[in-house]
Amino acid sequence: MSARAFHAVDPRSGETGPAFTEATPDDVHRAVAAAAAAFAAPAQRDDGRRAELLSEAAGRLRGAAEEIVAVCQAETGLPEVRVRSELERTWRQLEAFGAVVEAGDYVDAIIDTADPDARPIPRPDVRRMLVPIGPVAVFGASNFPLAFSTAGGDTASALAAGCPVVVKGHPSHPGTSAVVAREVRAAVENLGLPEGTFALLQSSGVEVGEALVDEPAIAAVGFTGSLAGGRAIHDRAAARPRPIPVYAEMGSVNPIVVTEAALRARAGAIAEGLTASVATFGGQLCTKPGVVFVPAGAAGDAFVADVAARLEAADPQVMLNERLRDALAARVAELAELAEPAAADGAAGGPEGPGFRFAPAAYRAAAADLAREPGLLEERFGPVVLLLGYRSEEELLEALDRVEGQLTGSLHAEPEDEALVLTLVDVLAARAGRLVFDGFPTGVAVTHGMTHGGPYPATTAPGTTSVGMTAIARFLRPVAWQNAPASALPPALRDENPLGIWRRVDGEPTREPISR
Amino acid sequence: MSARAFHAVDPRSGETGPAFTEATPDDVHRAVAAAAAAFAAPAQRDDGRRAELLSEAAGRLRGAAEEIVAVCQAETGLPEVRVRSELERTWRQLEAFGAVVEAGDYVDAIIDTADPDARPIPRPDVRRMLVPIGPVAVFGASNFPLAFSTAGGDTASALAAGCPVVVKGHPSHPGTSAVVAREVRAAVENLGLPEGTFALLQSSGVEVGEALVDEPAIAAVGFTGSLAGGRAIHDRAAARPRPIPVYAEMGSVNPIVVTEAALRARAGAIAEGLTASVATFGGQLCTKPGVVFVPAGAAGDAFVADVAARLEAADPQVMLNERLRDALAARVAELAELAEPAAADGAAGGPEGPGFRFAPAAYRAAAADLAREPGLLEERFGPVVLLLGYRSEEELLEALDRVEGQLTGSLHAEPEDEALVLTLVDVLAARAGRLVFDGFPTGVAVTHGMTHGGPYPATTAPGTTSVGMTAIARFLRPVAWQNAPASALPPALRDENPLGIWRRVDGEPTREPISR
Repeated sequence: MSARAFHAVDPRSGETGPAFTEATPDDVHRAVAAAAAAFAAPAQRDDGRRAELLSEAAGRLRGAAEEIVAVCQAETGLPEVRVRSELERTWRQLEAFGAVVEAGDYVDAIIDTADPDARPIPRPDVRRMLVPIGPVAVFGASNFPLAFSTAGGDTASALAAGCPVVVKGHPSHPGTSAVVAREVRAAVENLGLPEGTFALLQSSGVEVGEALVDEPAIAAVGFTGSLAGGRAIHDRAAARPRPIPVYAEMGSVNPIVVTEAALRARAGAIAEGLTASVATFGGQLCTKPGVVFVPAGAAGDAFVADVAARLEAADPQVMLNERLRDALAARVAELAELAEPAAADGAAGGPEGPGFRFAPAAYRAAAADLAREPGLLEERFGPVVLLLGYRSEEELLEALDRVEGQLTGSLHAEPEDEALVLTLVDVLAARAGRLVFDGFPTGVAVTHGMTHGGPYPATTAPGTTSVGMTAIARFLRPVAWQNAPASALPPALRDENPLGIWRRVDGEPTREPISR
Repeated sequence: MSARAFHAVDPRSGETGPAFTEATPDDVHRAVAAAAAAFAAPAQRDDGRRAELLSEAAGRLRGAAEEIVAVCQAETGLPEVRVRSELERTWRQLEAFGAVVEAGDYVDAIIDTADPDARPIPRPDVRRMLVPIGPVAVFGASNFPLAFSTAGGDTASALAAGCPVVVKGHPSHPGTSAVVAREVRAAVENLGLPEGTFALLQSSGVEVGEALVDEPAIAAVGFTGSLAGGRAIHDRAAARPRPIPVYAEMGSVNPIVVTEAALRARAGAIAEGLTASVATFGGQLCTKPGVVFVPAGAAGDAFVADVAARLEAADPQVMLNERLRDALAARVAELAELAEPAAADGAAGGPEGPGFRFAPAAYRAAAADLAREPGLLEERFGPVVLLLGYRSEEELLEALDRVEGQLTGSLHAEPEDEALVLTLVDVLAARAGRLVFDGFPTGVAVTHGMTHGGPYPATTAPGTTSVGMTAIARFLRPVAWQNAPASALPPALRDENPLGIWRRVDGEPTREPISR
């Protein structure tokens, strides 16, 4: 019997591209067994080697840029400038996590020296640090074929933590996954790390992902995608004999609030920025603003009309694949039952050819409608935005109270709005992972403190982020050494502090050695 | 219709004590609604007030010591010295978390200043800190009526984080819960905090706890107890429309390894310490050593016989309640099918009177038996230990490979064992939250870095601890402010660093203000 295969598709034309072999249940099992063996190997716990691995993988992806750009464009339809920028983000992210491993502070060392006089019991010498959690399953995202896929943020942070990674590649960009995986595997080989440190499984169905989540040796899952997909993986992982954490980032509607003063001061600039944030890359971003709260009345109406006209004038956008295009069409058809097109001529957006394109559009409704139409707040993944008019601050706050967990919340305000802004910051901070002031949520910078997360349904793990350097914490767990002889302590916890890392010693951060 | 009630029982005699009213579904709903209202109140986010609350609650518990000791003993059967020590731990723990709030570093502030030249996109000003997750449900533990119950570690860390707490009291010590809750409520009232900041629900069944976990406004759950109970709550919380994190600590068998050299050097001392760790307080501790790996042969046999004789000589221990006593009897009956009593006269332990007592006992089997009898590794909650003889290092390592997630792993070794110790540290660190050297795992000190956690089935959240100051992190989540005006920033993130806390600014820890 020959192996089953699936094909890449060029969404710009709808034409079928190269074939890729479907991973089998045996492939899943072999990849996880190799990952478990790699996890047990001492090389995996060598911070220097792992930092080199990340750096070498970054360098190899840079080197393969032309091949990656060509393959990626042909199966995602994303413009060249975007693919190049995303690739740069991807290798910079690998390098940044390499630097985090090299700096060594990520182990969050805490040392409490012994105190025989402590009450109510004598205090032993307790030294605690973070260690890797085990082999990690990563699900690639359709909309970030590089930065959230095969060697994206989840993979980079898991490898940095010391966890082998098994990627389930997204079937919307198998060629990109294959090239990236080839380079990461070459880096693994060059560094002499165990083969099981990294693997890619290609598949167009759900069975391979399900089998991967079920594998007993998998210790955590990283996922970026739809609410339905993330929830299914969360539920499956929770039902395992040994439940494991699932870090699923599932998108949101990323509400934006615009005040009257902001409209007076800069309605045109806000409309321009919003249009770009909604329509660029087909609006296929987890942080795309889906819902914008705008003052009711003449100024608000003019703003809504401006946004609608700008979106109507934009080119139809290539969607990543047929399924996403069809899903968006279905969602917009539902929206059309609850809201009205905002364009003067009633332009409603919708599918266009060639390939899988979608014409951008704005819809409008009253903020007060949320009370009877919760469906207005559903995510519509694509170049579509809903503008909601509020007649008073009370109505705005009531409406925001109906908004569930979000990746982001944004505010466009002026200094005279200070009291309202303070209220809105509280309201948005209670339900979002990131607050954006006088800007737009798309374009997530990779920094130490960046937070890309939020309460459910934005993610399944509100205490975590999938972007930024603290993403590494998802794949670590604490272990304490109690009254250990020096020879049994890892370097990070030894008196001399041979790694020169920051440690909390008897409550205070320091890089000094311990004298005893 | 009159309210339903249940009774405390004195396990020393089996006699029925005072009656307590069962919480109703309405009580659950009202308590959670009040907690949600308290969470929204500004007072809840005042670090100074919360530090005072914790300190005042600590002082009130000290003040009520005589009443607490009397009530607690009469419904738990724990000796006075233990209750006094546990009470001291409880109020010291409240004070320690108050100090953590006052120090302020717990918000883990990270500030990345703007960089317009950053690649691939300009870097905005990003400032991130941890904020409270929302109202928390805490399940009291039967075996720690003070330190892991109404005002125990989960409650203290959740209140410190800024989360209102609704406690489901354990029915094994309702009088203790009532007195402690009365004092905490008085502290809440004295500080002028919202009434919903803290509530206690008393119940003898599972329905109240289930209703509490189902309440939409509950954002996280803390639990200490059995694997069956913790798993049920985990599964229920995972199946909610909005799944929430469950921090369940479910005990373990806390393996101990004794080397031949350690037996040669100090067999008597190890036997004495082990006996105390197994039998004290009826062995009803999550960290009680349940399985000890001992070298096979004459020295090992003598050690096993010594431990068995010491346990046989110990008094029957009062168990916390009838259900625990019966469950232990059932587990020991199962064990007797798989292993043999270690005492020379075949003494097998078992239930005794008056009340709910249990005679301590040791059992023995071969480490190699684990291959065909995985049931040997089940937790037996009470004064019973299983000694497993290993004939070689290979046999020892093979046996340890079958051990699942543990709270602790302990080693008794000598300097000449250094190579073996390094191997064992790796093996134990891969499956336990704490490694104890030449000591016993019972008696968990509350320090900054203490880790009381571990991979499943020890807990449902391997990345966390329920003892030690980092327990606060369970009830926090990150939020980032992007390009926020100074007036919209919380004090912890302002340039001037008005709180004087440690922050990571552009990658480096510092307490300095930011100049720009």
